[in-house]
Amino acid sequence: MKFRRSERLIDMTHYLLEHPRQLVPLTFFADRYGSAKSSISEDLAIVKETFEQRGIGTLQTVPGAAGGVKFFSKISEAEAREFMAELCEQIEKPERLLPGGYLYMMDLLGHPQFIHKVGKLLASVYAGQNIDVVMTVATKGIPIAQAIAAHLNVPVVVVRRDSKVTEGPTVSINYVSGSSKRIQTMVLAKRSLKEGSKVLLVDDFMKAGGTINGMVSLLAEFNASVAGIAVLVEAEHEEERLIEDYISLVKLENVNIRESTISAVEGNYFSKNIDFS
Amino acid sequence: MKFRRSERLIDMTHYLLEHPRQLVPLTFFADRYGSAKSSISEDLAIVKETFEQRGIGTLQTVPGAAGGVKFFSKISEAEAREFMAELCEQIEKPERLLPGGYLYMMDLLGHPQFIHKVGKLLASVYAGQNIDVVMTVATKGIPIAQAIAAHLNVPVVVVRRDSKVTEGPTVSINYVSGSSKRIQTMVLAKRSLKEGSKVLLVDDFMKAGGTINGMVSLLAEFNASVAGIAVLVEAEHEEERLIEDYISLVKLENVNIRESTISAVEGNYFSKNIDFS
Repeated sequence: MKFRRSERLIDMTHYLLEHPRQLVPLTFFADRYGSAKSSISEDLAIVKETFEQRGIGTLQTVPGAAGGVKFFSKISEAEAREFMAELCEQIEKPERLLPGGYLYMMDLLGHPQFIHKVGKLLASVYAGQNIDVVMTVATKGIPIAQAIAAHLNVPVVVVRRDSKVTEGPTVSINYVSGSSKRIQTMVLAKRSLKEGSKVLLVDDFMKAGGTINGMVSLLAEFNASVAGIAVLVEAEHEEERLIEDYISLVKLENVNIRESTISAVEGNYFSKNIDFS
Repeated sequence: MKFRRSERLIDMTHYLLEHPRQLVPLTFFADRYGSAKSSISEDLAIVKETFEQRGIGTLQTVPGAAGGVKFFSKISEAEAREFMAELCEQIEKPERLLPGGYLYMMDLLGHPQFIHKVGKLLASVYAGQNIDVVMTVATKGIPIAQAIAAHLNVPVVVVRRDSKVTEGPTVSINYVSGSSKRIQTMVLAKRSLKEGSKVLLVDDFMKAGGTINGMVSLLAEFNASVAGIAVLVEAEHEEERLIEDYISLVKLENVNIRESTISAVEGNYFSKNIDFS
């Protein structure tokens, strides 16, 4: 069965979007559509150009016999800035404010298109880097971790506060929560992380950085290393933070629980050297 | 700026995949590409045909002035059967077996392409139905719920075992766990579910059905109704199940912890009347 170019472009687009950062040999597409490799190359040039123009991502061509093409999901700077403004507006709604300066965010974390965009924004930073796995702490970090992992095409590993029967043998550590100074526990299933993994740590909310710091300690137990740290929202914090090199999308300022006011501004995202599409 | 057909098809494919079950007016695409509506109609006919042929999904055309096009993510029966076989093979690996007849599944639940496919399989069942929200219980149901919700383009709501400061006011219920007969608690943030919502209940693992049954009771407190029940794996269960009308992808049989053997067979998925692409 032969495919017309228009059909190939549609199916290729779908296939590449579902397989980010994965090397797809030209012969795979040539066989799939019964087409010559030269036609496939032309198709891919059109896909690449359109992906870049429309802020979908980019294609990288790997030459040679073992070569092919890799799709990287990337956001355009214009789209990132537009989404960031919307994000700040959403976050600073006063009804989100909860006792203790926490924020209700489950509506955003549960919204499929919102979380997909958050994932794309953060994955764009790490698209070209060597990341083996995305790690987060249950529960609210999971949607963000999953959204980033989908764009990076790597697994998600979930750390828990307590061990469960469905985890099998676990490794646990104690850490000091940065803001309340209490001793807490973190547990990770032994089989969930390979030695030597390069790990992107993710969370929804960061105050002093105690939770992230706990994950860093946990990584040491697995001989794994930190490949990056990304949070959706960072809170105001007067004392020194426990961690330094992180990316945040939004930063809270002027949180006033009595007056029920809050303001959300851009985090340090745009100050990082991001290679937009 | 004018777009060639090839560019339009690529960008349209991406746009539709990112906005399932959402009505997109033809004028939206006409404006986006500076094209006549007649050209857009031709483009969409090609996209529809290719989506259906390749098991990506289908497009529904809504006629009239307020009309447009809606994309429904659907799996083909061949792809569903192929994935199901792979799924059973993955699940019945003896090293997954844990004390109490539980299964270690976090590696699968954290795998982006696996979970995307699980989401597509289950969302295909409910694509044409009236679903407002997908609900699950923390922690392991979250990846599945999020994957289904992405295909259905509806929010995810997460029930917890305990209340947290980041939830605000909550509603809690007690329920009896089906297998251990213990009284347990379930908590849901008050603002997370609207009255009258039609809810798809999702979980990773079902024994007697106590957890699902707990969610059903919780729905009553929100005047919400069950629109469907879907689980990834159902365990062997000798007594009567607490729930009847559910969809399962995989069913465990012959679980023998002493011998460390287990077999996984197709659940009731294919016995449901699914409209494949």
